[in-house]
Amino acid sequence: MYRFYTHMISTALLLASGASAWAAEDTEQLRRDANRLFDPIPTQHPRIEDGEITSAQIELGRKLFFDPRLSRSQIISCNSCHNVGTGGADNVPTSIGHGWQKGPRNSPTVLNAVFNVAQFWDGRAQDLAAQAKGPVQASVEMNNTPERVEQTLESMPEYVDAFDQAFPDSDAPVSFDHMASAIEAFETTLVTPNARFDRFLRGEDTLDAEEQEGLSLFMSSGCAACHNGMNVGGQAYYPFGVVERPGADILPEDDKGRFAVTQTATDEYVFRAGPLRNIARTAPYFHSGQVWDLEQAVAIMGSSQLGVELDDSQVSAITAFLHTLTGEQPEVAVPILPASTQDTPRPE
Amino acid sequence: MYRFYTHMISTALLLASGASAWAAEDTEQLRRDANRLFDPIPTQHPRIEDGEITSAQIELGRKLFFDPRLSRSQIISCNSCHNVGTGGADNVPTSIGHGWQKGPRNSPTVLNAVFNVAQFWDGRAQDLAAQAKGPVQASVEMNNTPERVEQTLESMPEYVDAFDQAFPDSDAPVSFDHMASAIEAFETTLVTPNARFDRFLRGEDTLDAEEQEGLSLFMSSGCAACHNGMNVGGQAYYPFGVVERPGADILPEDDKGRFAVTQTATDEYVFRAGPLRNIARTAPYFHSGQVWDLEQAVAIMGSSQLGVELDDSQVSAITAFLHTLTGEQPEVAVPILPASTQDTPRPE
Repeated sequence: MYRFYTHMISTALLLASGASAWAAEDTEQLRRDANRLFDPIPTQHPRIEDGEITSAQIELGRKLFFDPRLSRSQIISCNSCHNVGTGGADNVPTSIGHGWQKGPRNSPTVLNAVFNVAQFWDGRAQDLAAQAKGPVQASVEMNNTPERVEQTLESMPEYVDAFDQAFPDSDAPVSFDHMASAIEAFETTLVTPNARFDRFLRGEDTLDAEEQEGLSLFMSSGCAACHNGMNVGGQAYYPFGVVERPGADILPEDDKGRFAVTQTATDEYVFRAGPLRNIARTAPYFHSGQVWDLEQAVAIMGSSQLGVELDDSQVSAITAFLHTLTGEQPEVAVPILPASTQDTPRPE
Repeated sequence: MYRFYTHMISTALLLASGASAWAAEDTEQLRRDANRLFDPIPTQHPRIEDGEITSAQIELGRKLFFDPRLSRSQIISCNSCHNVGTGGADNVPTSIGHGWQKGPRNSPTVLNAVFNVAQFWDGRAQDLAAQAKGPVQASVEMNNTPERVEQTLESMPEYVDAFDQAFPDSDAPVSFDHMASAIEAFETTLVTPNARFDRFLRGEDTLDAEEQEGLSLFMSSGCAACHNGMNVGGQAYYPFGVVERPGADILPEDDKGRFAVTQTATDEYVFRAGPLRNIARTAPYFHSGQVWDLEQAVAIMGSSQLGVELDDSQVSAITAFLHTLTGEQPEVAVPILPASTQDTPRPE
């Protein structure tokens, strides 16, 4: 489907791509074309609007997301690597976890993550609840166990009450699974609506000439073939280096991406297309986190994925467009966490 | 002065100390005696009320307090060890910093810290601004340099604007000193008013019989000789082990406390009396962070500082009183931090 649109758009818009100012009718055409490929971020997720996710679950999830006692050391929380104040990520090449160990990949943003087809760079978790269980147990991240997490949560009466309220129909409200569900509920609130691009899509605002140029190029040159949908990416899997494989600094040989999930030869070096929402806030880039400059990242994508050497003005225009993807960042209050008790496992 | 009150109170109240219920007149007497030794936490600090600290400074300070880019690794912020959601501390024995190094002492709470006579366990910083410069530079904590911090802050236009607004009369608004002043401004907002004890002091509420018993004992047995004033401690320096020195697990021999500040022999093993506000939320206890149980901490204080073996019911009563020192915890929104730029130093 995207191939069809991409082809159509590239025909329509390459004609306009040299223009320094946009006629109103061209802007309207660009808006129509963009609306076929992208969707604005809603102000609230449908599951919250429908009441499928309750406020008790969200509130519990907020506590858990910020609680360092989910980690064995008791100093690492979800927010440590997915900081809601810094674009939902930690903005270092690869995350630093238990014992200062370096993780294998760059921390993906939690913002708008609910709109991705699946979680992690290789899509190995089908949803945010499944994702939340990973880092808690990973030895290089939070290095904890489900049993120890449950023991920790059960040791604090405030948490026991909060789980009761969040999961009123359950026989065993305090559980590792419910921890993950509550974190998912909270993370579902972490959306960034009303980016300038969203207002453009809805016809509420315009983009400047360079940004429109960038959007046009983004669609016509093929970027939108992989980076489309609500998250401008995050919807499907593609080989990194489809035309030309980047150097081992950017694409380390021993990380074969989705191959580890599917054990299928064609999935070697296949990754989920990066969701590009708020991308200007989450350097460094790629799963290896080795590229700090967004313009450089755009140029690398051109050569590795499209086989195109984008010139400076094209790179600059696409980058200007990418800056319009920064939405309203969520305002989250630091939760006041229950105090540990004598039954709470000690940090290790 | 405190000796006089302590003596007076001990005479007056020991008579009542066996009672299981408190007559109204005894409660009134207890309240009067307590009001001579303690003050309620105000809802706002006078420097904020007077406009001496501006909202622009507080808002900048909030950003800086949560910004991990003040650290060399870019993953440790002030809030990492002084988490406003967990009693203003990290609640591990001693803080873990750069490269997973363990600091020498337990992290003191930032909550109400503005009311302490000086900062750090040894009082080596005269105020919160001086304090803020320490951990940023300490190699076992954030491991940064003033120059690198200034370079970091200057690299982000949003920060440059925020410093301009916070320090409008300065020729060089972005500076390490102003960073510290802004953090102090924010930390001045981190107060916890309206603890049950404060409402008791103001005559708005009462305490139950055991809590009153504990307060009475706290004054009569000598605890309040060191732990008095608004922060129920934090006002002056005393030897740890004035009567009987605790074991080396609790009082490590190589940490001589305030001696390192004054180089005076009488200051060996002298520390600032711990401020006891919100103490039930900030285990583990003492500068070594080796005691997890508040009752055990009370018993150790009895033997080491007062030469008294408090019995179980006395320990329990004093602990019940200490729980009434938990105030309203500050609600702080995670600040949306400026994005790094190409000029921002990279994490190391």
